[in-house]
Parts: sequence; structure tokens; C-alpha cells
Amino acid sequence: MRHKHNELSVAFNDSSQNAPAMHFFKAKHIIENSMVFKFLKKMPKGGALHLHALGSVSPEWIIKNITYLPGLKKCINRANAPVLTFRPNAEPHMCKFDYTDVNDERKSENAEEYDKKLAAAFNLFTPTPEKDYPTINTVWGRFVQMFYGLWDALHYLPAAKAFYWRLLEELYEDNIMYAELRVELFRLYTENGRLDREQSILQLWEVTEQFKKEHPDFMGVRLIYTVLRGSKPEELQEYYSRLKNYTTRQPDKLVGFDMVGPEDSDLRLLSFADNLIELSDKTKFFFHAGETNSYGGTDLNLVDAILLNTTRIGLGYALPKHPVLMKIVKEREIPVEVCPISNQVLHLVNDLRNHPGAILLANNIPMVISNDAPAFWGVQGLSYDYYYTIMSLASNKAGLSTLKQLVFNSIKYSALPEEEKKTAEKNLEKQWNQFIDNILKDTEFNISK
Amino acid sequence: MRHKHNELSVAFNDSSQNAPAMHFFKAKHIIENSMVFKFLKKMPKGGALHLHALGSVSPEWIIKNITYLPGLKKCINRANAPVLTFRPNAEPHMCKFDYTDVNDERKSENAEEYDKKLAAAFNLFTPTPEKDYPTINTVWGRFVQMFYGLWDALHYLPAAKAFYWRLLEELYEDNIMYAELRVELFRLYTENGRLDREQSILQLWEVTEQFKKEHPDFMGVRLIYTVLRGSKPEELQEYYSRLKNYTTRQPDKLVGFDMVGPEDSDLRLLSFADNLIELSDKTKFFFHAGETNSYGGTDLNLVDAILLNTTRIGLGYALPKHPVLMKIVKEREIPVEVCPISNQVLHLVNDLRNHPGAILLANNIPMVISNDAPAFWGVQGLSYDYYYTIMSLASNKAGLSTLKQLVFNSIKYSALPEEEKKTAEKNLEKQWNQFIDNILKDTEFNISK
Repeated sequence: MRHKHNELSVAFNDSSQNAPAMHFFKAKHIIENSMVFKFLKKMPKGGALHLHALGSVSPEWIIKNITYLPGLKKCINRANAPVLTFRPNAEPHMCKFDYTDVNDERKSENAEEYDKKLAAAFNLFTPTPEKDYPTINTVWGRFVQMFYGLWDALHYLPAAKAFYWRLLEELYEDNIMYAELRVELFRLYTENGRLDREQSILQLWEVTEQFKKEHPDFMGVRLIYTVLRGSKPEELQEYYSRLKNYTTRQPDKLVGFDMVGPEDSDLRLLSFADNLIELSDKTKFFFHAGETNSYGGTDLNLVDAILLNTTRIGLGYALPKHPVLMKIVKEREIPVEVCPISNQVLHLVNDLRNHPGAILLANNIPMVISNDAPAFWGVQGLSYDYYYTIMSLASNKAGLSTLKQLVFNSIKYSALPEEEKKTAEKNLEKQWNQFIDNILKDTEFNISK
Repeated sequence: MRHKHNELSVAFNDSSQNAPAMHFFKAKHIIENSMVFKFLKKMPKGGALHLHALGSVSPEWIIKNITYLPGLKKCINRANAPVLTFRPNAEPHMCKFDYTDVNDERKSENAEEYDKKLAAAFNLFTPTPEKDYPTINTVWGRFVQMFYGLWDALHYLPAAKAFYWRLLEELYEDNIMYAELRVELFRLYTENGRLDREQSILQLWEVTEQFKKEHPDFMGVRLIYTVLRGSKPEELQEYYSRLKNYTTRQPDKLVGFDMVGPEDSDLRLLSFADNLIELSDKTKFFFHAGETNSYGGTDLNLVDAILLNTTRIGLGYALPKHPVLMKIVKEREIPVEVCPISNQVLHLVNDLRNHPGAILLANNIPMVISNDAPAFWGVQGLSYDYYYTIMSLASNKAGLSTLKQLVFNSIKYSALPEEEKKTAEKNLEKQWNQFIDNILKDTEFNISK
């Protein structure tokens, strides 16, 4: 133990490069050379509880693997963003021109350049975020387009299966043993038409089961169904009634419900209360709330989420401005899914030492470290978010015990059924001890070096 | 009252220009056109309790008035910053070259250009702060040089008198009725040598008394003596013993003591504890503490300041990361001198909606809005800091009552003797009511318009 604390403090003192204070896009290469980061990469991380499936696989992998499948078409929509699809008769995605065949197009250009450009369209990375994203709207605009552009292509059955397998691999490679994925009420499709929603889930389930078989220490995933807060009222009505069905019929796969979209421009949760209260009989809520810099406006979603008895709070950035809600959250043990890098990239905070997660940590608010849509800022897994958590959000004096607490929180506050939770905790304990043993033996981390 | 609330909320909704989220240097022109700001300009503001005298008069005024006095000399020091002095035999200020006569130099160049360049050397303003001040060290470096460059010139008796008069005017023009000025243990000088410290104070006192005579609703100033935390131990020893003398002999002018300098690079207050405890008999403390983004390091000055029984806390930026200290500060009613723009310009926070003052406000921590060294970012008075307080730190729903509370706090938590405090409160009450009456009559603020 002492070895790790020392190693951490060595790295803390090394913060003259000050990556903890920098924008992630500028600090990435510094972080990757940091000993603390290398340590965190090896650390078992338990569960990833706030993760949008479509933003969870690196764009490079998607380009190399999905976009080479025959039949992929592309168009450019009115926001000048590419939209990909495998549908033979794709509906126009508000496209400015007709669809082109990606493989044909690639042949007629320099393939490498073509792929690079396409990958960049699904990654927010830029070396100068302050210039390219001057406002929250510019970056959210691109963020939303990225989900939209991938949506159709990734719901093509062969693509979806490969994608989900890779998603699990990327989690696994970062020592994550379990995930709760935010997905929309999707239907997969093939050349021959659409599967129904239940079949679609079962297809992904097969992938998960196969993955678990090949990786026995992986505990699988659960799904949290999401709908866009900005949907039309009649669409919402339909989603709600579907949801009631599926949660009953697949309670081991679907664990809950959430509403998504840019909080600042959408309606408050309160406006959907009547339907949500009705849903709450059978459905656990995992609401996004308080992902905003507003104070006395959008942030009041936090009030709504708590009143609607949410099981966890997604992002919860605005929480420390509400001491009364903080108290309630602590008393009722409603964990906050804290996503440091997401909050930074999506323009809520620049220097992560100002992230409200510091206040949550200081006040012992239950929290889990999450990564939101990591692929969209070019990373996999939770290690980078843990880096900022321990280097920017936590006190200099916080070390291994803080990390362990946060990692174990991610199982404690998961939606796993009790039995599985116990197993997961046992497995995590084992992984943790193994990790400590390995670190102690590892000459790279040996402080006497 | 309703009129003002409406007027405020109109302006709140107008925040599409989003000045509350912008760096002050970029938002200044937007703020100056804002109705909320115009309202705040007219608002009586009570006291300015955290204000460094040398950084409190606009550089343009200094250039036009002080630098035209005969005998002013200039050199460029090793940090490439100008140092000004009237001393006939100035000691070398670590200058690279010899002193030049400013009035001669000005004649040999384009005078307007010359003055502009000189003024810019005493103003941190830049349209691109993110480029010019990439780190806290770059901006603090310039900040310190600005104090250093003006120090000698402004302690020349004629310059000092004119300077202090203008300082009072700038406060008065912003509807401030009282100030507590941070000053070093200064000695004024003339062509014939140096005045002693007590005479120096009395000279300034005359200026204040004269100003009060001409502006009967101005309540004067008090001085808080400061020393550089980075001073040599023997110098500090000397300062302490002087201080004991002066606080006894001029208790109506000197109200307390503070230690200044960049907290992150200086020693903790703890290191001076022995001497400070001895001083505490006769001297009230007004310590800078927690002006930092560090967590578990420099911020522990907050612990030291509270243990040393500080009367107020200067800046206190790191306080919300310490819930236990927050509780103590609230219980013991130790007000925090919150300086939003200073914290932004000096690189602690970019978007002021992330300023910890929001958490202090939400938790009802006693606080006073302060401006630190406003001239160094090109403003006068407290109006700009109040703008950010009500637009960025406070809830959208906070309006006139929050402002009134903060304004009255600035007298309540001042170091005025009880009798004068009562008078000040009475005067402020009168000013406030007058202000409300005027606003109600003012067609510009009439919401029916």
C-alpha cells in the first residue's frame, strides 16, 4: 500500500506539467505518459454505469471495421455532417444530396485520407478546442450530429453485432467488468427488413453471452432505455407504452429508463411527470439531471429527478449549488454519475480543478465515475476519467482508498440483481487484491527504483 | 420593487449574449451595454473591503496625471517591465539599463503613443487572455510587476496625495461610501528625504479628511497593513514590531494586518504562526487564504487563517472544497471577501458560473463582494464584480434582496468602530431608499417602456 501512496504522491508533485488543470485534448499526451495514469490503466474499475452505447467504440475501429462492410451508404446532411446507413431504401436523413456508396467513394480517393477524414467526423478532438468550440452550442451541435450520423449504420444487424462485441472488448481492455448502457428503443435491421425490439435485444444478448463465455471474469451488461426529451408528444406516448412492456418481459436485460438530449434547450422533467409517475410502477429511473451551468433554470431538473425517485443522477453537474438537494441525495444514497471529461469537452468547465465533483467528494456524496460517450473524445474506458478524478477533483492527499471506494461504488450502486451484485463484489475484491499484488511486484511502480 | 425584479429578469433572459459565462476582457463591452449593469452602477454599494490601494486607480489617470509630474524617471527591469520613480537617487530596481527621464522621453516620441504604451504596462487587459496568459504564472508574473513598477512613484508625496484623492473619487463615483485599503508599511518621500511611517499615514489622512469634507456622504477609509509573505525573515521581524507600534498609536486608521503574495509559491500562514499569535493581542487579521486551485496544499491556508482567528477571509476561493471549514465560517460569522473578476483574470476560473462564490451564496456563507485590484484589469469600483455576482454566481431567481444583503454585509462586516458602523448603516439605508425611489422614477428602468 505504501508503495502506491508514494507513487501517487511522486506523480502529484510532478504536476508541474499540470495536466490536471488542462483541457483534455491538450493534456492527453501528458496523461498517457503519467505514472498515475499507467497505474489507473491497470486498476480494476468495476462498472461503467453512465455510458451511451453509440459513443463507446473508437471511431478508428468503426471506420476500419464497419465502414468496409459492403452496402454502406453515406450522405451529407444539412448540418454538413455525414450520415451512414446500410438500409437499401434509406429514408432521406435531411440530406443535401443523394447517398453515395462508401466503398466506391473510397476507391476513387486516397483511401487512407478518406478514412482519416471520416473518423474525424466522429471524434470531437481538436488541438484547439477554445477556437473550434467557442460556445456550448457549437460543441453540442457536433455531439448530437455524431450520434445521428452513426445511428442507422450501427443498427444494421451484422454491424451491430460487431460493434457491440468491440464495445465489450474496449471495456474489458480497460479492466471494466460490467456496464450499464444507455440505448434508445432500437430495432435492428437486415437486408430483409426489421427485427422487432425484443428480438433486437436478444441479438445483442447473444453477443454479450458469447463474450462472457470467452471472458469469464466479465459480468455482462444491462440496458437503460433512453428517449429524446425533445421527441414529439405522440412519439413519447408510444415509447412509454412500449417501455412498460419490455421492462416486464426482459427485466434481466432492461433495468431502467432515462430521458436524454441537451438539457438547456429541452423541457424540464417536470413536464413529463404525469407519464413518468405512471411508468414508475415497473421502471427504475436513471435520469440525466443538472448537466448545465445554469442556476435556477435547467438545473431544477435535479429537483424533478429526485421527486420522481430517480435511482441515480446522470452527470449532476449543478448539484453543489443546491445544498438542500445535496443533503437529500446523501441521506437517500442516490449516487451521482460524475463524468469529468464529458463535462469539460461539452463546455461546462475548463479547468477540471473547478469541477463540482470536488465538492461532492469533499461532502461524501455517493458517486460513481463515468465516461458518458468516451469514443466521441477519442478514448476508451474509464482510466482517463479516473485520472482527472484523482488528480483534479480529489484532494492531493486522497490516494488508493479514495480510488477503491469509487471503484467499489460502481458495483454497489449498479442495477445488478442482489445475487449477481454479491458475486460481482466478490470478483472485484479478488481482482483488486490481484492488482495490488501485481503493482507491488511491478518494478515500474517500485518506488525504490 | 416589482419593477426592479422584472427589469432584472428581462436582463437575465437577455443573457443570450452570455456575458456571465465569458472572460471579463471579452465581455466588458457587453456588460457596459447591459441594463443590469446600468442598474448596478447606480446602486449604492456600501464598502469596498478588499482593495489593494496600488491597484485601485485607472492606469490612464495615472499616466495623464502622475507621469507628467516633473522628475519622473523610468527604467526597464529584468522582467522587461517598466519601473517608475521620483527618487533623485533611486536605488537600482534590478534594472537592465539606466534610468531615463519620462518627460524627456515622451517629448522625443509620439506622446500619445508613448502614453498608451505606458498605460498598457499597468493594465492586464488583452483581447485574447487565453493566448497571452496561458498559465497562472504568466499572469501573476505581470500582476506582481505592476505593483512593483508603480510602488516607488506613488510614494512620492505629491504623487501619493493626488493618487489617493483620485482613488477616493473613483470609489465615490461608483457609489461606494467606505473602503478598507490594503497598503504596505509605506514611507512617503519628497525631494528632501523620507517621512516616517506615522507622518506618511497622517499625510494620507489629510487627503481623506479633505475628501470627506467635500463629499459629506463619504465615510472615509481604513488601512489594513500588508507584508509580503515572501519577505526575508529579518524583514518580517521588523515589520511585526513596527506593526505593534502603529496599531496601538493609530487604531482609528490602521485596523489590521494581512500577508500577501502568490499563495501557491509562498509559505503557508502556519510558518509564521509564532509571530502572528504574538501580534494577535492588538491586531485584527484579514488574511488572504485559499486563493488557489490547489486542493490539499495551499488551500490549507484556510485552516491556518481560521485557527489564527482571522476577522475576514481574503478571496477564500478554495473554501467550498472544505465543508467543515464552511460550517465553522458560518457559525463564527467570518465573512469571505469574494473577488469574482480577480479570480478570473488571475487564472483560477474561466467561466464565472463555475465560481465557488455560487456555493457560498447557496450555503448562506457570510460574504462581501470585493474587487481586489480593479485598475489592473481596467475598471473602477465594484459594479463589474456585482454584475458577475448577480448574473453568474447567484441563482437566476436571486434579485434585489440578494443585492441588498450583499451591500449591507459590506458595512456589517467592515472594521468600522461600532458608532461609525451604525451611522454608516443609517446612511446606507437612506442611500438605498433614495436609489430605489430614483429607479422607480427612471424611465430607462420603467418596464412598461
